[in-house]
Amino acid sequence: MRASNGHEDLVLGGDIGGTSTRILVVDSRGEPCGRGTAAGGNPTTHPGSAAVALAEALGKALAAVDGSAVRAAVIGLAGGGALRAADVRDRLAQAWRQSGVRVDPVYVSDLDVAFAAGTPEPDGTVLIAGTGAAAGAVQDHRVLRTAGGHGWLLGDEGSGFWLGREAVRATLRTLDLDQPLGPLAAAVLQSLGAPSTATGGDEATRMRRWLVQAVNAQPPIHLAGLAPLVSESCERDPVAAGIVSRAARLLVDTLAQVRDPAETSPLVLAGSVASAGSPVGDSLRDLVARRFSGPVLAARDGVGGAAWLAMASTDPAAATASVRERLVRG
Amino acid sequence: MRASNGHEDLVLGGDIGGTSTRILVVDSRGEPCGRGTAAGGNPTTHPGSAAVALAEALGKALAAVDGSAVRAAVIGLAGGGALRAADVRDRLAQAWRQSGVRVDPVYVSDLDVAFAAGTPEPDGTVLIAGTGAAAGAVQDHRVLRTAGGHGWLLGDEGSGFWLGREAVRATLRTLDLDQPLGPLAAAVLQSLGAPSTATGGDEATRMRRWLVQAVNAQPPIHLAGLAPLVSESCERDPVAAGIVSRAARLLVDTLAQVRDPAETSPLVLAGSVASAGSPVGDSLRDLVARRFSGPVLAARDGVGGAAWLAMASTDPAAATASVRERLVRG
Repeated sequence: MRASNGHEDLVLGGDIGGTSTRILVVDSRGEPCGRGTAAGGNPTTHPGSAAVALAEALGKALAAVDGSAVRAAVIGLAGGGALRAADVRDRLAQAWRQSGVRVDPVYVSDLDVAFAAGTPEPDGTVLIAGTGAAAGAVQDHRVLRTAGGHGWLLGDEGSGFWLGREAVRATLRTLDLDQPLGPLAAAVLQSLGAPSTATGGDEATRMRRWLVQAVNAQPPIHLAGLAPLVSESCERDPVAAGIVSRAARLLVDTLAQVRDPAETSPLVLAGSVASAGSPVGDSLRDLVARRFSGPVLAARDGVGGAAWLAMASTDPAAATASVRERLVRG
Repeated sequence: MRASNGHEDLVLGGDIGGTSTRILVVDSRGEPCGRGTAAGGNPTTHPGSAAVALAEALGKALAAVDGSAVRAAVIGLAGGGALRAADVRDRLAQAWRQSGVRVDPVYVSDLDVAFAAGTPEPDGTVLIAGTGAAAGAVQDHRVLRTAGGHGWLLGDEGSGFWLGREAVRATLRTLDLDQPLGPLAAAVLQSLGAPSTATGGDEATRMRRWLVQAVNAQPPIHLAGLAPLVSESCERDPVAAGIVSRAARLLVDTLAQVRDPAETSPLVLAGSVASAGSPVGDSLRDLVARRFSGPVLAARDGVGGAAWLAMASTDPAAATASVRERLVRG
């Protein structure tokens, strides 16, 4: 990465997610010349957090380059619908103005960015399974139709939140039935700081009450933090294995809402829950291979995909597949 | 109902629920001599609300009788586990002290009270399906083991909350698939005050975003308010009929966790969702008849059941089945 001389045309890509906010500035040949990272921001639930994170990441990315040389900017935003809320729009616009970049950013869905991080093709399907879960049908690099992605209260089946909640629900059921704790239930209680993991009769009743109160004392989305316990215990706990299977099936059902089985365009999988090598990711790939056609690709660095989309918006000829490949390598 | 002369022994029953808080004072022959009603209070989520409601209902019930003549008090509390929280315990104790009643109340689960409101028998099973859903195995008038009742975030499948959430989820799915709105989806959008119910392409996308934001702008438990829309539309909307069937199956699954199929003791159904004549209640009765043995009874007035349990605790001989019958008539 090198500093811009301030005269060259630049483009900017961004990815505002629940876990991190990232900005990448590249020159006209697609060479990175500025990067910034900040905490995640969820514009739907915390309108302020996304703007603060955006301002910080922009500040870092533009520390050594001239923001006024940026000719195009594409920002992927988890829960793209949030921009319809005037307060979110206003706060993001303020953060943007203060960055010194003169062009307005184009906000796109995190699905658009994930698809570009998986393939240079213009058409296909993308599934993100991280804290939330959503699928989109992509045409000419833009998501036309989506399924899922309605947030933890109303949907996101098979997501990290869903996995964590199912882990607690399975633990409560074990306690209701006064059965011995399996590896997953024991890990859930330990992870939440249970005073003991003794069970049997009154102990099970006490533990169940404790668990319900401990979970309700936190913001619901914190349940996503328990998702790794399901992956870690699924080889030795049939309860965890059952949750993994159901998650994969639910994610495939979400995909099926936006993709025809005969479709042969690329199918991009993104997000930690869908990653290859993870139990849900592997189970998902098995089901996808049986139910759909076309190549299955893993999304790579989202902010690289966003920068590539920004390049394509000003100079399509420069936004080649090989430039994309380099940008999404991360 | 008549005023006590202040010398007679009295007992007090109470029912603190999410929808209402009720107190009933009866004399030693089970004749009502004081009643009080106040708003509902959920001790799990709003520790203060239950105490305020209890104080108000106690004040009304004891307006014309001498609280110091009360020899026993039994109070049913939704989410009985809440009493483990010190702040709830302290606030309820303060409301109690100010009532002038000198004996300490015995707090029991709302399941105990509902069972007593359904049968004078000491043993059996009870299912409550209102805003939440829970089942309990009862022995000697006390719930020994429960299933469900973990609150909207972690369980309560088949409850009013669950019905309302499924109604919204079904609506979102219709919008995701860009299908025409059925009666349930139209009713959901109208009930929440949607700006329009036009659909198709961009309209469906806008409506979906609006719906997710409208639901998330309210406390999640407000979703229970949409449950009646499912009942109202299930005869002309297969989507609503499917939700009704699933709710009934889930409630039976909860029952099956605490009741053996061969068990012949009474099975008491309580709560608005389980009421006879409602779609879920009728579907539930069909499934229960096929899967379990023993008589199926409907719980009647819960506060009458609580007063009867209070009578039984001081003078078991006076707490006859016919006294109970009169008290639970409401």
